[in-house]
Amino acid sequence: MLMIPGPTPVPEKVLLAMAKHPIGHRSGEFSKIIAELTENLKWLHQTQNDVLMLTASGTGAMEAAIINFLSPGDRVLVGNNGKFGERWAKLAKAFGVAVEEITSQWGQPLSVEDFRSKLQSDTEKTIKAVIITHSETSTGVLNDLEAINKAVKEHGKALIIVDAVTSLGACNVPVDLWGLDVVASGSQKGYMIPPGLGFVSVSSKAWQAYKNAKIPRFYLDLGKYKKATDENSSPFTPPINLMYGLQAALQMQKEEGLEAIFTRHQKATTATREAMKALCLPLFASDDAASPAITAVAPTSVEAEKVRSLMKKRFDIVLAGGQDHLSGKIFRMGHLGFVCPRDILAAIAALEATLIELGDTTVSPGAGVAAAARVLIQ
Amino acid sequence: MLMIPGPTPVPEKVLLAMAKHPIGHRSGEFSKIIAELTENLKWLHQTQNDVLMLTASGTGAMEAAIINFLSPGDRVLVGNNGKFGERWAKLAKAFGVAVEEITSQWGQPLSVEDFRSKLQSDTEKTIKAVIITHSETSTGVLNDLEAINKAVKEHGKALIIVDAVTSLGACNVPVDLWGLDVVASGSQKGYMIPPGLGFVSVSSKAWQAYKNAKIPRFYLDLGKYKKATDENSSPFTPPINLMYGLQAALQMQKEEGLEAIFTRHQKATTATREAMKALCLPLFASDDAASPAITAVAPTSVEAEKVRSLMKKRFDIVLAGGQDHLSGKIFRMGHLGFVCPRDILAAIAALEATLIELGDTTVSPGAGVAAAARVLIQ
Repeated sequence: MLMIPGPTPVPEKVLLAMAKHPIGHRSGEFSKIIAELTENLKWLHQTQNDVLMLTASGTGAMEAAIINFLSPGDRVLVGNNGKFGERWAKLAKAFGVAVEEITSQWGQPLSVEDFRSKLQSDTEKTIKAVIITHSETSTGVLNDLEAINKAVKEHGKALIIVDAVTSLGACNVPVDLWGLDVVASGSQKGYMIPPGLGFVSVSSKAWQAYKNAKIPRFYLDLGKYKKATDENSSPFTPPINLMYGLQAALQMQKEEGLEAIFTRHQKATTATREAMKALCLPLFASDDAASPAITAVAPTSVEAEKVRSLMKKRFDIVLAGGQDHLSGKIFRMGHLGFVCPRDILAAIAALEATLIELGDTTVSPGAGVAAAARVLIQ
Repeated sequence: MLMIPGPTPVPEKVLLAMAKHPIGHRSGEFSKIIAELTENLKWLHQTQNDVLMLTASGTGAMEAAIINFLSPGDRVLVGNNGKFGERWAKLAKAFGVAVEEITSQWGQPLSVEDFRSKLQSDTEKTIKAVIITHSETSTGVLNDLEAINKAVKEHGKALIIVDAVTSLGACNVPVDLWGLDVVASGSQKGYMIPPGLGFVSVSSKAWQAYKNAKIPRFYLDLGKYKKATDENSSPFTPPINLMYGLQAALQMQKEEGLEAIFTRHQKATTATREAMKALCLPLFASDDAASPAITAVAPTSVEAEKVRSLMKKRFDIVLAGGQDHLSGKIFRMGHLGFVCPRDILAAIAALEATLIELGDTTVSPGAGVAAAARVLIQ
């Protein structure tokens, strides 16, 4: 049982769809699938912008979001308050982009004010893009994309480039309403399919920037993907079987509806957090910056790694650990994608049993499950 | 029934392996899978070099083979006698590499002599790499990699970079014996799994070049893949379910054995070609440059596109058409990967019936099947 932020559990229907024989990717039959996927991806992104599919993991989609719209030497602001914000900075620097990092401590959200003041003082309009991670998977923090984006819109010139890898399909990311220029995501998260597909949505303003962007590119050249997608095709051989899976998953998501999906994730998040509080486990991110995908816990009464290994051994439930300097200091419980109230209750019940076995005397047996259930049955 | 050069038919065992629930890619269990895959990939490549797995289609692997070992302005020779040779040239040029193309007409093999004379006259050793397509999928031509590579070895300085997308796992590509520096391939071909994984093997000489290569890179930075693979891990989330499929496919290939795999493809190729001759259909490539993956036919008595559409309609057999200026002039029959004598006989028998229905009076009914069978039962 995967309670990690990716890969997330995959519905049986999706797994079986992937086990179908591949058909030719240049056939009329497959063109229809591409057309359906493109339409449903736009629905998921709440956008009329192009949404392009790449054979790549999330990092490939992030790279595409940089190299297609920027040139070496371009000035950009990068939000860095965790491993994936750090990756944005590394990625942009690798291509010669002039990165100014706006940092917060891991576990704290990015400061909207820091972005606003940088953008307001840029009267020459030299900032080409603001690049942030929406849901910071390494810490369970949801950055305030809406507010930071407002500051970007007041600036008027800069693009907003977003990693929505663990927010899209989990909480509201209204691409058109907010005017998000470039949004990158990956398949093994809210999409409920295994890893291997990356997605990038591109606004018309971003396509304008594309025309002047000078970073060399070929495989991840989004112009090629747009041209092919407009003809319901793909520039290079696409991962046919993963796309069968995506087809089934998007159909399931449409049936459930965006509002219901967001509510389900919100409940899973709140239930998990209330349970942790009831179990006296310190949450790593505050309530007002809680990721809808993952909850990070920094236990003091027990060792995080012992919790993880005993959960795996006794209950075959996989939790994620901390990354980099948080290794051994936190554990992370994913509640993203194909997750239901039963999963949350099972994981919390197992966590309680694990804490008790580890000799955590602060635990009142049943308190976590009771707290989670109160939220879930609302 | 797919008789195209990719995607190729996928064995049931592989499809079902892909339908398993994904496990965490940072788990010990998954590390074991990566270790097994890496060992078996080395076996398939006949090498002790690194063989790295990328979440990408074949073109992504080709790009990795360029950007990790070359710098802008580097002088390279690129063989171009078809769509994929052309792609090598476009790719290298996109990253500022100084490309000198050595061309042959589509349907003709590359001239070994052209490479040898260029390399011999390079007394200053300014040529950094020779880049060729082994099996040119667009025309069914197998270029003489062994001989061209010999000329590269006499030069002594240049790297040999090879697209083995439709030759690896179909005919002999002994990476260590020949000293092939960089070999790129993709999953939907000889590997017998759906598209979505790319592979690159890298020699120690190529790693030396890597140290000085200046093309910017991040997602396809092979140094990151080597470091992770050495620890039985991956730098970014890998396509877990495709790797389940790869595991099953490589186990099947090992069971069959390299010699048997090559013989099976050789027989499929010869049987197909003998059948075409018996049906008075002109072969696009000559016998001594016949690809083990695909046979291109340039019919004169019937229209190529009519053959393809009737084969699909009557028998649900998919043949490939011609690409670019060969569109409508040739059809291509794939015989790569999970293909057996029964498939060849079925396809030839269906082709005979199709030709007869199209009013091709040059066909003696049964002649094609008889010619193919003579080869297959040897």
